[in-house]
Amino acid sequence: MEKEKISHWFQHLQDEITTALESIDGKSKFHEDVWKRNQGGGGRSRIIQDGNVFEKGGVNFSAVHGPLPEMLKKELQGKASNLDELEFFATGVSIVMHPMNPWVPIIHMNVRYFEINDEIRWFGGGIDLTPIYVDRQDASFFHENLKNVCDSTDPAFYESFKKWADDYFFIRHRNETRGVGGIFFDKLTDEDPVKMQHYFEFVKNVGNAFVPIYTEIVNRSKEKSYSRANKKWQMMRRSRYAEFNLVYDRGTRFGLETDGRIESILMSMPPVAEWVYDFIPEGGSHEEMTIFSLKKGTDWINLF
Amino acid sequence: MEKEKISHWFQHLQDEITTALESIDGKSKFHEDVWKRNQGGGGRSRIIQDGNVFEKGGVNFSAVHGPLPEMLKKELQGKASNLDELEFFATGVSIVMHPMNPWVPIIHMNVRYFEINDEIRWFGGGIDLTPIYVDRQDASFFHENLKNVCDSTDPAFYESFKKWADDYFFIRHRNETRGVGGIFFDKLTDEDPVKMQHYFEFVKNVGNAFVPIYTEIVNRSKEKSYSRANKKWQMMRRSRYAEFNLVYDRGTRFGLETDGRIESILMSMPPVAEWVYDFIPEGGSHEEMTIFSLKKGTDWINLF
Repeated sequence: MEKEKISHWFQHLQDEITTALESIDGKSKFHEDVWKRNQGGGGRSRIIQDGNVFEKGGVNFSAVHGPLPEMLKKELQGKASNLDELEFFATGVSIVMHPMNPWVPIIHMNVRYFEINDEIRWFGGGIDLTPIYVDRQDASFFHENLKNVCDSTDPAFYESFKKWADDYFFIRHRNETRGVGGIFFDKLTDEDPVKMQHYFEFVKNVGNAFVPIYTEIVNRSKEKSYSRANKKWQMMRRSRYAEFNLVYDRGTRFGLETDGRIESILMSMPPVAEWVYDFIPEGGSHEEMTIFSLKKGTDWINLF
Repeated sequence: MEKEKISHWFQHLQDEITTALESIDGKSKFHEDVWKRNQGGGGRSRIIQDGNVFEKGGVNFSAVHGPLPEMLKKELQGKASNLDELEFFATGVSIVMHPMNPWVPIIHMNVRYFEINDEIRWFGGGIDLTPIYVDRQDASFFHENLKNVCDSTDPAFYESFKKWADDYFFIRHRNETRGVGGIFFDKLTDEDPVKMQHYFEFVKNVGNAFVPIYTEIVNRSKEKSYSRANKKWQMMRRSRYAEFNLVYDRGTRFGLETDGRIESILMSMPPVAEWVYDFIPEGGSHEEMTIFSLKKGTDWINLF
């Protein structure tokens, strides 16, 4: 399997997804910035702003290579030889969509492939949903679909990758999950090329699942009317999203520490966010229920 | 010098500053939350919101103690013995004020005292100004006053602490300073109790300088009218402030990693912030001039 083939497929995925999202939005178009990285490679950042459905969102493709960044050297200490002579290659697609309507959840997806010379090669990725108001039907629909995608490759994947997402998309200092989770996986690798091809097919299935799943979730709520209070709650939930990305997200911190293209890395940040001191939702409100729902380990599929 | 005396003085400073800020604001009052820390000590958080002058701000006092947190153990590896048996004590006042009017700068101050049993004791602190629109008169007034405070203790302090602030309040991934800087200092210590008393006097002078300096800066601009575009620019600058605090600020990250009281730690976050993709200010605008001014090493006192 050649890396060019993989990165070409990711580019194609970016095209498919941006076309579909523009059609959902019906008003704004993605703005594209093509960029090059000094040490090797580059990317295509596509940003949508001030749309009908999407207040702000980004779908980024990149394929970068070069000498190992310091952060990776530290992680690989002892696991690979000649760290100073090695070259890495990384390609993938990253998406974060911040809808205008507080009833429509924020979504994030990332699919990626990574290699170091011929010593290391792996796939990784994840997709997670962050509702402003948790809706159990949406959450179970989301997880059922992800389970189907996983099951078609390996019946053990969903349980394992769902737990990984619960652990990864967790805002430790708030003791709450970022949203209703999803799946997260990293370092899928095998020496057998047939199995690697199998993993690639899985990553493709995850990527291809994005449009049908999110289209359905957006369509369910995009026409729902909302109040100023709903919008304010959205701003407060978005500040949690900002906290997660800046404090914990490995992709973001990797980008910041390796001098990535800053506007592409931080396209994930919310358009507007609010920090209100010690906000406590009213007892019995949908806001309070949302906070209560943001717990690790919820089985969204068998909740009813 | 007893630690109780120092923490008592910090408490007194908090009272003086909140009284003065309420009088500047003329509308909102500080809300106080008294909290206790499970492992020892506690604090008084005072928050002001939706005022005439201040959109949001906090003046926190704390005095906490207990076994060394993991993060400190790592830092002290090799510098102190029996890390597992040591107890730390830390007390201080932290302030961040986010004004409503974009012409009025954000200000931050922290003064603190730290000790570990009888092995280590030091003072630290800092004060820095983050204008939404850089105004050279304000910046030079601010720095002149800080220089006077420093010079009255040690003529070498200002140059050294000003540089320290330039390096500390720097948003590396944006390649810009957080604002026009100020002073920053840490680990002021001496075995001679007379010299330690001298450092305490210096920290008191810094603390006492806050009200007269900020009152003058607020009064200069608080009545100035502003447009929606000015307010939008303020939102964008505040998102940089959020990035600095969550990605780099040692106090914030220390609080997040040691399970501090989260609402007190994040009182520094802006009330509302905006992330606009790849915003480039108009050529020759005050916004552009502001970006150009956010460089390390500017001598604000001798700029003219």
